[in-house]
Amino acid sequence: MSEYFFPDQDAKFVLQQVVGFSDLCNQLDQNDLNSGLTDAILEEAAKLGHEVLAPLNQIGDRQGAQLGASGVQETAGFSEAYQQFIESGWPSLAGDPEYGGQGLPRALSTAVMEIWQSANMAFSLCPLLTQGAVEAVTEHASDELKAIYLEKMISGEWTATMNLTEPDAGSDLAAIKAKAIPQGDHYRITGQKIFITWGDHQMTDNIVHLVLARLPDAPEGVKGISLFIVPKFLVNSDGSLGELNDAKAVSLEHKLGIHGSPTCVMSYGDQGGAVGYLVGEPHTGLACMFTMMNDARQGVGLQGLAISERAYQHALQYAKDRIQGTQRDGSRVAIIQHPDVRRMLMMMKSGSEAMRTLAYVAASEADRLKVAAPHDKALCQTRLDLYTPIVKGWITELAQELTSLGVQIHGGMGFIEETGAAQFYRDARILPIYEGTTGIQGLDLVGRKGLSDKGAGMLALLDQIRDELVTLQLPDNMQAANELMVQAEQDAREAVVWLLSHKEDASSIGVNLMMLFGYLCGGWLMLRSAAAAHALRADSTQDISFLDAKLVSARFYCEHFVPRVAAHWQTIKAGSEAILALDEAQF
Amino acid sequence: MSEYFFPDQDAKFVLQQVVGFSDLCNQLDQNDLNSGLTDAILEEAAKLGHEVLAPLNQIGDRQGAQLGASGVQETAGFSEAYQQFIESGWPSLAGDPEYGGQGLPRALSTAVMEIWQSANMAFSLCPLLTQGAVEAVTEHASDELKAIYLEKMISGEWTATMNLTEPDAGSDLAAIKAKAIPQGDHYRITGQKIFITWGDHQMTDNIVHLVLARLPDAPEGVKGISLFIVPKFLVNSDGSLGELNDAKAVSLEHKLGIHGSPTCVMSYGDQGGAVGYLVGEPHTGLACMFTMMNDARQGVGLQGLAISERAYQHALQYAKDRIQGTQRDGSRVAIIQHPDVRRMLMMMKSGSEAMRTLAYVAASEADRLKVAAPHDKALCQTRLDLYTPIVKGWITELAQELTSLGVQIHGGMGFIEETGAAQFYRDARILPIYEGTTGIQGLDLVGRKGLSDKGAGMLALLDQIRDELVTLQLPDNMQAANELMVQAEQDAREAVVWLLSHKEDASSIGVNLMMLFGYLCGGWLMLRSAAAAHALRADSTQDISFLDAKLVSARFYCEHFVPRVAAHWQTIKAGSEAILALDEAQF
Repeated sequence: MSEYFFPDQDAKFVLQQVVGFSDLCNQLDQNDLNSGLTDAILEEAAKLGHEVLAPLNQIGDRQGAQLGASGVQETAGFSEAYQQFIESGWPSLAGDPEYGGQGLPRALSTAVMEIWQSANMAFSLCPLLTQGAVEAVTEHASDELKAIYLEKMISGEWTATMNLTEPDAGSDLAAIKAKAIPQGDHYRITGQKIFITWGDHQMTDNIVHLVLARLPDAPEGVKGISLFIVPKFLVNSDGSLGELNDAKAVSLEHKLGIHGSPTCVMSYGDQGGAVGYLVGEPHTGLACMFTMMNDARQGVGLQGLAISERAYQHALQYAKDRIQGTQRDGSRVAIIQHPDVRRMLMMMKSGSEAMRTLAYVAASEADRLKVAAPHDKALCQTRLDLYTPIVKGWITELAQELTSLGVQIHGGMGFIEETGAAQFYRDARILPIYEGTTGIQGLDLVGRKGLSDKGAGMLALLDQIRDELVTLQLPDNMQAANELMVQAEQDAREAVVWLLSHKEDASSIGVNLMMLFGYLCGGWLMLRSAAAAHALRADSTQDISFLDAKLVSARFYCEHFVPRVAAHWQTIKAGSEAILALDEAQF
Repeated sequence: MSEYFFPDQDAKFVLQQVVGFSDLCNQLDQNDLNSGLTDAILEEAAKLGHEVLAPLNQIGDRQGAQLGASGVQETAGFSEAYQQFIESGWPSLAGDPEYGGQGLPRALSTAVMEIWQSANMAFSLCPLLTQGAVEAVTEHASDELKAIYLEKMISGEWTATMNLTEPDAGSDLAAIKAKAIPQGDHYRITGQKIFITWGDHQMTDNIVHLVLARLPDAPEGVKGISLFIVPKFLVNSDGSLGELNDAKAVSLEHKLGIHGSPTCVMSYGDQGGAVGYLVGEPHTGLACMFTMMNDARQGVGLQGLAISERAYQHALQYAKDRIQGTQRDGSRVAIIQHPDVRRMLMMMKSGSEAMRTLAYVAASEADRLKVAAPHDKALCQTRLDLYTPIVKGWITELAQELTSLGVQIHGGMGFIEETGAAQFYRDARILPIYEGTTGIQGLDLVGRKGLSDKGAGMLALLDQIRDELVTLQLPDNMQAANELMVQAEQDAREAVVWLLSHKEDASSIGVNLMMLFGYLCGGWLMLRSAAAAHALRADSTQDISFLDAKLVSARFYCEHFVPRVAAHWQTIKAGSEAILALDEAQF
């Protein structure tokens, strides 16, 4: 197995040159982050990722979690790693200071999260989901519930889970059947939930399950769902732990990947009903769920970047080491010298870098939202809403291609499990599925994010891209790349206009439009990176080699990924007739 | 697990309407195939595939082959299935009648082979590789060797293997180190070979290893490689089996997929040298190897079609069964009703159908070559040479996308191994790697097949496509699809012309050009299918529903896959500067 090193130079470049992190910290009144603290945080996180989490990644794959008499036993070594993880205060990075959080910008905590997800995605799903639950509790729970749960969730002393899916209710949450019966100050929850990530483990004293269920008087459909906190162990009024709740993992799934992450079937109420506490108002579970979900969706998009980066590093090492082929002078060469291997490495490199720009920029939009002037709030919110399905949908789909290239670069060795390339490929396959499939992201983009404001948010983004492309100062050999992007922005604009007059086709073309926007945004931010690199090259104290590589990577991206924008637009404007024409029997 | 049914209606349609099978049989003087025999053959094969081979597919995945004291023990049930397989005469379908083969057209044996590969790819690799070896022995071995080995290989009584790869010699065969020392009428072979598919098993009395090795006086590089027959058991002059040869499987690989197919490390000569027999002239092993390889490459392309078809059937069944989502009237619907699920199913359906047209047409070119008039031989050979890397490269790459869509349609269940969708996805991942990676196919296309004749073969193919597009009679609602193809053919032509004036970029753009040709050929043959369906619709005795579906599928293909041609062309004309610009240290 190759080692994992956080690409700190690229991450800092993206933060500073693409996100505008210094200004952001000013706006957030966190100027201390502009004086070395950010570097120190990233360095410490990179060290933990490199030394502790990454070496456990393949172990987790081979010795996945097991269900025994006393619940789920996670992979050996994970618990010790988790203790180190929380003792250093990592989970609380972005948490609310009122409950012990460090209140750091989301842009920074996202860069840190990239490290965890690259180092060990299966392990890091646990804090990722806990963070989503923290968001939901912070935003929707009563002060009383917050006082009991939030601090321990933010610190990572307790982990949390998201319990949405049931056997008959996956993408379709309207079909949820779990029940919550009022009993004094709490509720009794019964029902079965599936695909519950880190639903049980022995790493912490308690686990906070966030569970969607229906109250007795609930209306049908999604408007009758409520959200409950269901702790694994009941919590006494003094904060000490009481008895085991009526909630347990009854089986584990045998999965294609992320074996280190236990995916549980959870049973609530086998003994009469698990004690649960209502979060927010009755029947508002969907809104609470979306708070968790939007956070988790960006997190899953980030996983797509993280695993692509890891797969790239792994393939790069192999390409440098593997000798194959002879030059005319008789000397043998490493496969990195072969043009097609370079092409694949450049696909992985420039693709991952583009993902990073978008993931960090999207995260920073959440920071900007917090400090936006009142008249800018709506704009920030719209932009954040627009980014979320693109980050989740596009990055995770592209991660399939990049991790597959990681296997391909290994040739026959890529198909052998010991090599490790296949694990990234297998692990990555869950990403376009969980927290809302790619299809759901497409629907979200065209429906709630596109048509609902008559395309205003999308067109405003395209205006910004168009205007920026005009002003970017790029080297001469990148004018053609810029022109590819100018054309792509025009195609995207035509696609949005087309959508507005073809609303009936929206659900058929959603995924193509989402992918189109992803490739476009990647190109836009890579060209922003290129312009920054071009400007910085004038300063001889800079790492010129790095800046040159950034220019090449941006150009490569425009040449190899941006032409896909036109292909998606061609497909979109063909409409839905051929998609929908067949009777079921004709398939 | 879903059942597997051979799509006989589509296969026969492709044979008759796209390949021109009746005429072909006339030319081959095999008119008996035009009177029901073809249908009978396909029906019997489909039955064996459905009833015997397909049910063993998941078993092979779960209980892969094991290496024990007496060699490799294949998955339980495989041996019985293999006996049925050879007793019915299936391996000999396309074999030379002089050695017991049935001499049927390659187009037909390819359709039959699709069945085996769809039903159980891991199992069917064994006859696939044996067939490649049969080709090599038929073409290159002495009559004496043929007399001893060929009949038993053609009948399947003995299986065969291809031993090319060594730890330091994968894509780069020049680095082969295995040695062959002359000793009387035979040679003593020593060396280690890796990735030997079905290198050992207990299904047959003997295994015929075809091994590349160097003679003592061999020149360096690929011009010093010779091919040898190395039987597992020596064969006495009366045809009876003698002692065990000095050749054995010493370990098995732990792979991402095709667990039912033992991938062996083979050791030759641990006891002083395995007895081997030279095939063809000394130092001509590369040519012999290419005979095997070209056959096997088309076979692997066919595997890409076969596993895509199987994954499609599996996903289709799930999409019809899985209830998710509610209509306005309150009734719940199967996910096949959701537009994006339909889009994915149509991608799988039209993509697989396009693969089938190309795989069968390419196979039929080998038949035409046999009976071509002398002045047509070169043309047939050029066309066959051109098709081979496209069939291997494009179909297997597209199979990655289609089997991944198969997982995606299953949602969360797709990631659970028991569902079965993940197996097709894992199994498919070897296809762009073995028998020459996608990169090698790209090089083959641009180099040996493109530049070597100054693009004549490629341009002749484009001429044929252009001319045919003009004459096709299509329904009105497919004119736009036809225009997409007209544009795509022009893009392809520009790409070929560009290549001819940018020879130095050939190895950088090979894969993009190969993929471009794949999507183009798929569109061409799907439109040929559509025109045939349109014409047949006038006949009320036809299955109109099937013909309508074919029209929809062809249109969908043009709308969703053909736009990728332009994207590949855009990427090609960007050249290799950005691909090659970075120093190794800049990655």
